[in-house]
Amino acid sequence: MNEIARPSGRAADHLRPVRIERGYTRHAEGSVLVSFGETRVLCTASVDERVPNFLRGKGEGWVTAEYGMLPRSTNTRNDREAARGKQGGRTLEIQRLIGRALRACVDRRALGERTVTLDCDVLQADGGTRTAAITGAYVALVDAMRWLRTRRLIANDPIVGAVAAVSVGVYRGVPVLDLDYAEDSDCDTDMNVVMNDGGGFIEVQGTAEGHAFRREELDALLGLAESGIAQLIRMQREALAG
Amino acid sequence: MNEIARPSGRAADHLRPVRIERGYTRHAEGSVLVSFGETRVLCTASVDERVPNFLRGKGEGWVTAEYGMLPRSTNTRNDREAARGKQGGRTLEIQRLIGRALRACVDRRALGERTVTLDCDVLQADGGTRTAAITGAYVALVDAMRWLRTRRLIANDPIVGAVAAVSVGVYRGVPVLDLDYAEDSDCDTDMNVVMNDGGGFIEVQGTAEGHAFRREELDALLGLAESGIAQLIRMQREALAG
Amino acid sequence: MNEIARPSGRAADHLRPVRIERGYTRHAEGSVLVSFGETRVLCTASVDERVPNFLRGKGEGWVTAEYGMLPRSTNTRNDREAARGKQGGRTLEIQRLIGRALRACVDRRALGERTVTLDCDVLQADGGTRTAAITGAYVALVDAMRWLRTRRLIANDPIVGAVAAVSVGVYRGVPVLDLDYAEDSDCDTDMNVVMNDGGGFIEVQGTAEGHAFRREELDALLGLAESGIAQLIRMQREALAG
Amino acid sequence: MNEIARPSGRAADHLRPVRIERGYTRHAEGSVLVSFGETRVLCTASVDERVPNFLRGKGEGWVTAEYGMLPRSTNTRNDREAARGKQGGRTLEIQRLIGRALRACVDRRALGERTVTLDCDVLQADGGTRTAAITGAYVALVDAMRWLRTRRLIANDPIVGAVAAVSVGVYRGVPVLDLDYAEDSDCDTDMNVVMNDGGGFIEVQGTAEGHAFRREELDALLGLAESGIAQLIRMQREALAG
Amino acid sequence: MNEIARPSGRAADHLRPVRIERGYTRHAEGSVLVSFGETRVLCTASVDERVPNFLRGKGEGWVTAEYGMLPRSTNTRNDREAARGKQGGRTLEIQRLIGRALRACVDRRALGERTVTLDCDVLQADGGTRTAAITGAYVALVDAMRWLRTRRLIANDPIVGAVAAVSVGVYRGVPVLDLDYAEDSDCDTDMNVVMNDGGGFIEVQGTAEGHAFRREELDALLGLAESGIAQLIRMQREALAG
Amino acid sequence: MNEIARPSGRAADHLRPVRIERGYTRHAEGSVLVSFGETRVLCTASVDERVPNFLRGKGEGWVTAEYGMLPRSTNTRNDREAARGKQGGRTLEIQRLIGRALRACVDRRALGERTVTLDCDVLQADGGTRTAAITGAYVALVDAMRWLRTRRLIANDPIVGAVAAVSVGVYRGVPVLDLDYAEDSDCDTDMNVVMNDGGGFIEVQGTAEGHAFRREELDALLGLAESGIAQLIRMQREALAG
Repeated sequence: MNEIARPSGRAADHLRPVRIERGYTRHAEGSVLVSFGETRVLCTASVDERVPNFLRGKGEGWVTAEYGMLPRSTNTRNDREAARGKQGGRTLEIQRLIGRALRACVDRRALGERTVTLDCDVLQADGGTRTAAITGAYVALVDAMRWLRTRRLIANDPIVGAVAAVSVGVYRGVPVLDLDYAEDSDCDTDMNVVMNDGGGFIEVQGTAEGHAFRREELDALLGLAESGIAQLIRMQREALAG
Repeated sequence: MNEIARPSGRAADHLRPVRIERGYTRHAEGSVLVSFGETRVLCTASVDERVPNFLRGKGEGWVTAEYGMLPRSTNTRNDREAARGKQGGRTLEIQRLIGRALRACVDRRALGERTVTLDCDVLQADGGTRTAAITGAYVALVDAMRWLRTRRLIANDPIVGAVAAVSVGVYRGVPVLDLDYAEDSDCDTDMNVVMNDGGGFIEVQGTAEGHAFRREELDALLGLAESGIAQLIRMQREALAG
Repeated sequence: MNEIARPSGRAADHLRPVRIERGYTRHAEGSVLVSFGETRVLCTASVDERVPNFLRGKGEGWVTAEYGMLPRSTNTRNDREAARGKQGGRTLEIQRLIGRALRACVDRRALGERTVTLDCDVLQADGGTRTAAITGAYVALVDAMRWLRTRRLIANDPIVGAVAAVSVGVYRGVPVLDLDYAEDSDCDTDMNVVMNDGGGFIEVQGTAEGHAFRREELDALLGLAESGIAQLIRMQREALAG
Repeated sequence: MNEIARPSGRAADHLRPVRIERGYTRHAEGSVLVSFGETRVLCTASVDERVPNFLRGKGEGWVTAEYGMLPRSTNTRNDREAARGKQGGRTLEIQRLIGRALRACVDRRALGERTVTLDCDVLQADGGTRTAAITGAYVALVDAMRWLRTRRLIANDPIVGAVAAVSVGVYRGVPVLDLDYAEDSDCDTDMNVVMNDGGGFIEVQGTAEGHAFRREELDALLGLAESGIAQLIRMQREALAG
Repeated sequence: MNEIARPSGRAADHLRPVRIERGYTRHAEGSVLVSFGETRVLCTASVDERVPNFLRGKGEGWVTAEYGMLPRSTNTRNDREAARGKQGGRTLEIQRLIGRALRACVDRRALGERTVTLDCDVLQADGGTRTAAITGAYVALVDAMRWLRTRRLIANDPIVGAVAAVSVGVYRGVPVLDLDYAEDSDCDTDMNVVMNDGGGFIEVQGTAEGHAFRREELDALLGLAESGIAQLIRMQREALAG
Repeated sequence: MNEIARPSGRAADHLRPVRIERGYTRHAEGSVLVSFGETRVLCTASVDERVPNFLRGKGEGWVTAEYGMLPRSTNTRNDREAARGKQGGRTLEIQRLIGRALRACVDRRALGERTVTLDCDVLQADGGTRTAAITGAYVALVDAMRWLRTRRLIANDPIVGAVAAVSVGVYRGVPVLDLDYAEDSDCDTDMNVVMNDGGGFIEVQGTAEGHAFRREELDALLGLAESGIAQLIRMQREALAG
């Protein structure tokens, strides 16, 4: 690793302090407040005994996600999407990503004809909200599955593996892990990576914001992401054991 | 007070435990997590150096509010208003109420040509979200005014008095204070009262849900509200002194 | 009563001239043009042999209301809500109020599984449109019930009492009845009261627009409302006898 | 003219009784209730001292129209367009037609940089609402122009001619004038014609609803329209003289 | 015919070069690229084995149309209607016209309970897009019917006649056929005419854009339209024989 | 390369036949019909002498994209987004991707304060519409820049490099280039790659649809993409030289 001064003072391959707090609210079947440093996302899992039309009668369940930012979760206030009357492109893109990521760790046949909706609402944003959301939503999803099993609504655990996500980027020429807002804003390349606990890639989304990135930068970023996600999956496991 | 068994076990004239936590998130000029029992509302105050068109050039400021419930703040999941593409009638009604209530304690000329927006987002609902929102938003508003004064953006304190709110209702024939969800659902009459620290009424909104209420019931409810709000204003003062 | 000069020249406890004209249009099951002075609202009651989803199969009916102002019912033209693509918060708030008020006088089981929709469209506005709407809609609703009974679609009258509404306010320090637009605009406190013919309160909605109102003002306003509504209910009865 | 039994009992070339009532509401610069038989449309003309962007600074005014039907103006209740969140295609088509028709009789340079909006709201529908609207809106427009001249806001009359409209159709093989709803529903061909007082055609919109119409039918319909519109223009003149 | 210099150099009674290209795209049951000079419209016919609610169980089919312009089909870019969130009045008016015109040539009982949707998308606009769309959509519709018959989904041909459309107008005092954009913009009167192959009129929509048109002008325009449509129907027949 | 039988019969590392047709429509400053096999996308570049608000007065231009599919570009008809009243999440995601990709090859300062909008409308879809759109839009953008230079509206070429895109995926265990619809639907992993002519990566978006992909699969896919994009950039160059 090269020497750089990250605004956060972290080493290039260090995550921010991560906290996973289960049972944060009481109505949802799973409810997790996840923090990646100053980024805080409330992830709830809600079970509904119906499926979307396209799955009706097929014996399979569905897992989907919605994402939102509270208007003042950010440094300057953003318009409330409900008041503007539509969700923006960024919101839709992120919630589609979260949904795909979580479906990748579920056996939808074992879930049966029901839907789990993961609501990821950002209480405070400081970069990496989508990766924190995926990491926390996984824990909420596991809690919802336990809830279903406790009530004997399902026989077998539909969870087929863990899923977590992290961002990586090239900050002033150096690949770094888990960007906060200050780093992200000043970054040439930004990549979000979703992986499972078998070391497989579920999503890789990299964007060159300044100049294009070279193949070797891409390789270094993927390596950083692999190590960060391995740590996150360990923390998820500890939280779920708690 | 008659003897009744409230689901909550409280005496008819008792508030739920109230908690007012300042500085809950860090970006907003005021940020308060208010709890009335299990009801938890995040109230942020955001300062914007602009006013709506109808006030431009008049030397006065504006105070407005927006309200939202996280989809799983309630017992069963509600559709996300941003996804449905519009705010419902109940939401609009509540945010108009919050805005009016807070404007009643502000000297808009002392505020100058700027807008303070109070975002009240319900993290967990158990009855009384609008009254908790008003009570918490007042504290967030005071913090935002202090922020403005610290930066010498305003010379005089625009706050002309405190404002708090509480619900009262007739539960199984007995007037009770500060209804939780179980009580509210099983209540004949429901009233939300907003008052200031001078004992003046700012809003009174009473609705007969079962049979109509008699004048003496109305009187008893107003009395309960007066005593509850006096306590809430004391708690706001303590929180602000902290 | 104190002496004041109301813009209208009326005594503090006088209603405006009220007119209730049944059968104003011919398609609806009930159709009433109600005038409170220069305020004119067309109230139609439409019977539909279906109920909303949440009532299907429960053996109960539903009563609901919609409210609108013609664009030039007011002194300056307002945008047409259909053209703007949504109903504003004030509109939604008023139509929810009208619906609640009318449901309070109906035995929904006697109505059977059908819906009555009360459309209240303001042809000319001069203050008090919501109270005129409630007062007129009650008469249209009774006509629709008679229409159902004449056709033997229902056996028993679902109307369990009369409902009427009036506004009251503190104008230059004096409580006055049935505010017109000039009085309403210049008023410190404004309250809309809905009552039934048994003297019970159905809705009380008071708002301090200038300084907060004291308990004794509230009491005086409620007294004025009681006397005004008693007169309105007499006029409804006469109109229905006509 | 062939002998037929029109549902209305009218001769093939007879209009329904027409009534043009000026000053129907009091806020608008022009306000006309027009009746073609049981069809009743309230037409208001509102003057606004602004023009749309595309005309700013050109020294010309604008005349535009909006059209709406009250939900229960028709035999069965129609959804309120404001509640559905958009105006339907039929509504947009009709209001574009009314706007074009009225612009055809105005010298927009003499009007100066202001807009006149004609709101045509159907209180009761029985066929021919768009032709009644055009005929009544013309009178409201003239009243608004007189209002402007009385206040010396314009020097010369911008009205360059009268405009009226009528429907014609082939009912059971016979061309008839001014269709009511029963005739319109049972009609093979339906045509709306707008003309000026110089005998010129402004709009001709014919639609074959059953079989296509032949050239000689078209000729007969145009003849009927010419005679009907001549009568309507006479009635407008009388109303304006009143 | 008077002598005039049309911008296009055509004689007053000449169509632009017309091209009808079947099978332009491969997924639709009928797919036609129609060109009227530089105006190019892609018309696809899609068969759906369902009907709208109002026809369910009646043994009849439905034919409907949608119309759109690509944002840069025109000389200056127009906003994308999908991005603006609604279809404009002109779009709705045109697609209603296309739908009515095509339904006029179909025996909906022979079609059976299915819907054919005609999507008419303008790739390049140079005047007359709606008339080109009708003329091309007819050919796509015939292809879709052939597709249904080939698969033995219907027994009898639902097509009861051909339909085509053309615009006519008075350009500098002279009636001309098939206006291109330059002519249309500079035209006093503009009429769109839809006819069938039996010489019957299906739609006549004439608008005076400058001064009103006289009866003899109307007659001349209808004569031009008759001759133009006869030619278009011949070209449709040739294209379908190809 | 392993041996597999792709549905298309192509070798694993073969592109579909690519065609880039400039000047497809005549109004736009750049207009390209690009085909990747049966996928056909019309890409137009429109120049507007304004910039979005956030860039006003900064001396920089903007490049943005919009994407749409004609309703019957696909095998079964999709609802028209303009009729549904909003663009779906997939549409917004794709048009954001196209915009970012094209901005990566433009010196926005050299462009000056103007906007180029790239409209990418899919006439026929058979997989890879977004990659075809990027590849074609680049050529349309270059044509628009030439148009600006010919008119001396800009002094220096704002294009700083070429951009093209291709999809790659793991089909039945074998990495393959440029998936058509049949392959894409039956594919475990799908990746879209955007690169410039310097071999730099601009976007990498990979999604595991079945099981997660391993690092070595990712490497193989990136290699295929590099070779495919090199060919596409050659074809763009030839098209632009033509």
